[in-house]
Amino acid sequence: MQAWQLSADQAAAMMARGELSSEVLTRACLQRIEAREPLVQAWAHLDPEGAMVQARARDREPRRGPLHGIPIGVKDIIRTSDLPTTFNSPVYAGHRPSEDAHAVAVLRAHGAVILGKTQTLEFACGGRFPTTRNPWDPERTPGGSSSGSGAAVADGMVPLALGTQTGGSTIRPAAFCGVYGMKPTWGRIPFDGIKSYSPALDTVGFYGRSAADLRLLLQAYAVADGEPVVRRDPLQLHLGICRTPLWAEAEAEAQSAFEATLGRLRSAGVQLVELSWPAGCDDINRWQDELMQDGGRYAFWPERLNHSDLLHDDFQAKLDNHLGLTPERMRSALDGIARCRIAFEASLSGLDGALGLSAPGAAPVGLHTQGMATFNRMWTAMQVPCISIPALWTAQGLPMGLQLIGQRYDDAALLAVAQTLSAVLDQERTSWN
Amino acid sequence: MQAWQLSADQAAAMMARGELSSEVLTRACLQRIEAREPLVQAWAHLDPEGAMVQARARDREPRRGPLHGIPIGVKDIIRTSDLPTTFNSPVYAGHRPSEDAHAVAVLRAHGAVILGKTQTLEFACGGRFPTTRNPWDPERTPGGSSSGSGAAVADGMVPLALGTQTGGSTIRPAAFCGVYGMKPTWGRIPFDGIKSYSPALDTVGFYGRSAADLRLLLQAYAVADGEPVVRRDPLQLHLGICRTPLWAEAEAEAQSAFEATLGRLRSAGVQLVELSWPAGCDDINRWQDELMQDGGRYAFWPERLNHSDLLHDDFQAKLDNHLGLTPERMRSALDGIARCRIAFEASLSGLDGALGLSAPGAAPVGLHTQGMATFNRMWTAMQVPCISIPALWTAQGLPMGLQLIGQRYDDAALLAVAQTLSAVLDQERTSWN
Repeated sequence: MQAWQLSADQAAAMMARGELSSEVLTRACLQRIEAREPLVQAWAHLDPEGAMVQARARDREPRRGPLHGIPIGVKDIIRTSDLPTTFNSPVYAGHRPSEDAHAVAVLRAHGAVILGKTQTLEFACGGRFPTTRNPWDPERTPGGSSSGSGAAVADGMVPLALGTQTGGSTIRPAAFCGVYGMKPTWGRIPFDGIKSYSPALDTVGFYGRSAADLRLLLQAYAVADGEPVVRRDPLQLHLGICRTPLWAEAEAEAQSAFEATLGRLRSAGVQLVELSWPAGCDDINRWQDELMQDGGRYAFWPERLNHSDLLHDDFQAKLDNHLGLTPERMRSALDGIARCRIAFEASLSGLDGALGLSAPGAAPVGLHTQGMATFNRMWTAMQVPCISIPALWTAQGLPMGLQLIGQRYDDAALLAVAQTLSAVLDQERTSWN
Repeated sequence: MQAWQLSADQAAAMMARGELSSEVLTRACLQRIEAREPLVQAWAHLDPEGAMVQARARDREPRRGPLHGIPIGVKDIIRTSDLPTTFNSPVYAGHRPSEDAHAVAVLRAHGAVILGKTQTLEFACGGRFPTTRNPWDPERTPGGSSSGSGAAVADGMVPLALGTQTGGSTIRPAAFCGVYGMKPTWGRIPFDGIKSYSPALDTVGFYGRSAADLRLLLQAYAVADGEPVVRRDPLQLHLGICRTPLWAEAEAEAQSAFEATLGRLRSAGVQLVELSWPAGCDDINRWQDELMQDGGRYAFWPERLNHSDLLHDDFQAKLDNHLGLTPERMRSALDGIARCRIAFEASLSGLDGALGLSAPGAAPVGLHTQGMATFNRMWTAMQVPCISIPALWTAQGLPMGLQLIGQRYDDAALLAVAQTLSAVLDQERTSWN
């Protein structure tokens, strides 16, 4: 096994035992990028020299914890003090912030090596698409808007990456790229220093190649606090099955892979119960869209005022309130979502979480699309934690995601459930094998 | 009348007619500051030369709108590209961000002159207090955490200022300093570039010396959109009276001034109806506090990781979760607030807003306190717009605030109501007369 193939958790364990240096791992990642980037195009900004300087500095220091020396990719709407942050927008060409975003400052303080900035849909919202390709099939999208983060982790370019989610921007690329992705509870990681889109939805997201990898990030952000979390036996797990009212929009292959997976979990002793979708909640994805569009009306004012010539038509349309969002409609959307959140979490009472699809199927063909957020919008609106487990596969061998959904603030407990499920389901497939 | 005595709305009208230049107004503000700052201490950072450069540049340009050339003060937790931003924290001594916060970028793009940074409680949260004094009585607090913004506008140092509110940090200084203050609907103005504290509460706030002043800011942020708003006759206004379950915590003088004001409004033809506090909502201020404390657990991680020696004990306590906030308690707080929001807004149906107190009384004596947020916490939690009108006075002549509360997204309509009420109530008192 080569160093770039190590998961973050494996690499951290080797570093703790003195069997691996940050320099070796970082160099291996950079070499993997050099070999693969012409095809995959995951990166917006890289500074190989700067990354090696960081790695060597970490190797000379006492270890600050499990992230010490681990390279991390950062979605290019998240500000970094040592690399450009350009939001894939011509407005910010060459832009170099002076400060790290909160999410980056925490990782850097834990000794992580900020390897580079990953490609994103313009402002994680619309307009200019990234050129990133799916490592499993370069004719397909890696999903978006955290396209580069999902693809880079899947392709062995970096063991961990940060994304964001306002609609389905973290979970969908995780599903399409066959890696682990997590959208923690809304608000747990401050959005300071990240370009906002819609404040009640915007959430920092994680990518890794195992559930244990994601745990390293939860710990760094101090989200894995509260009750100690013990990884449980599958026999102790009670999970809901949540197909949502949009199940018919899932592809047949995704539906059958989901059912087969439920069968495997039942065989392993996991207790599963069908959940019914709460009454009055069928419109939640439309409400989420209204929140997102309304957020966009305010998020891009500085760019319009200062650079209207460089602002894509997609943003102009949002600023013009083309959906006619009135105060009444906004209150109705927000209150509808609040009621659904309360009812959905009540339905999880006594359960360890719910299982559904991360996306309607595998990654579609073409880079002009990022796929659909059908099975993400409602969870982003509800602000609940979600984890995509790469446990469903098409007959062709393309990844699809199994989504695990929990109650707000149960992030650490939900990740423990994901670890148990992974042990039952994960076939440890990678795009390079 | 001297130029520094003009309200923003008056100054904007004179500038539009070519009767006043930004240079004259800005110089007048700087001279007022020079004379008064040794006593009031409203400012954290000033660059008089830089402000005059901005003013003269604005005078040479075509007018971009009503804010063109108007000086504005900015609370020092809001990032500015041309002035330090230090959050009143030793961690950020001398800190100079490279970018304006969203809230500042919008004003600058409209031609406003960013006059300086105003004093704040450390991180708008705790720890180090500002040294700002109340212009009405220098022995008293101006309130906080937007202390400098409230005091500077009250003292004629600047016609407009930005603050923020997570508990009562905008409305309370407005009340104590006898100026107009507004906390718009949560989320309307992105918090990008402002130090966050608790994401479901953090809101940008406004200060001015008239309701028309506040309208200039609402328009700049494009919040005054939707239905055209017509200033109405008092005879057409229907308002609720909302004493909240905490009425007993208001001082006797505040209670009697409030009742007298209701009498004056009734005499002017305003129809008033007593609202009953929604059932199950008596704990809302405690829930707000739990949200705020929980936000603090995450907001200050980078500072603890990088500068624990410079971080005040107040923040260490939050990071240590000394309240024992569990996932269950957080969900209970958030859902309780959501239910109250729905019930309170339903009680406003058919009304133009509700009236209450902005604070339990006038500013207390001493700079070791910022007063109580008793009548602010519930509205911040509900994310509804609030406006403090300087319409209540103690026998001694100290200002207290009349608070007008509306439904989310009705910001522009609520401000029109405030304009009508002001015409009935405002005695145009200033601290310098």
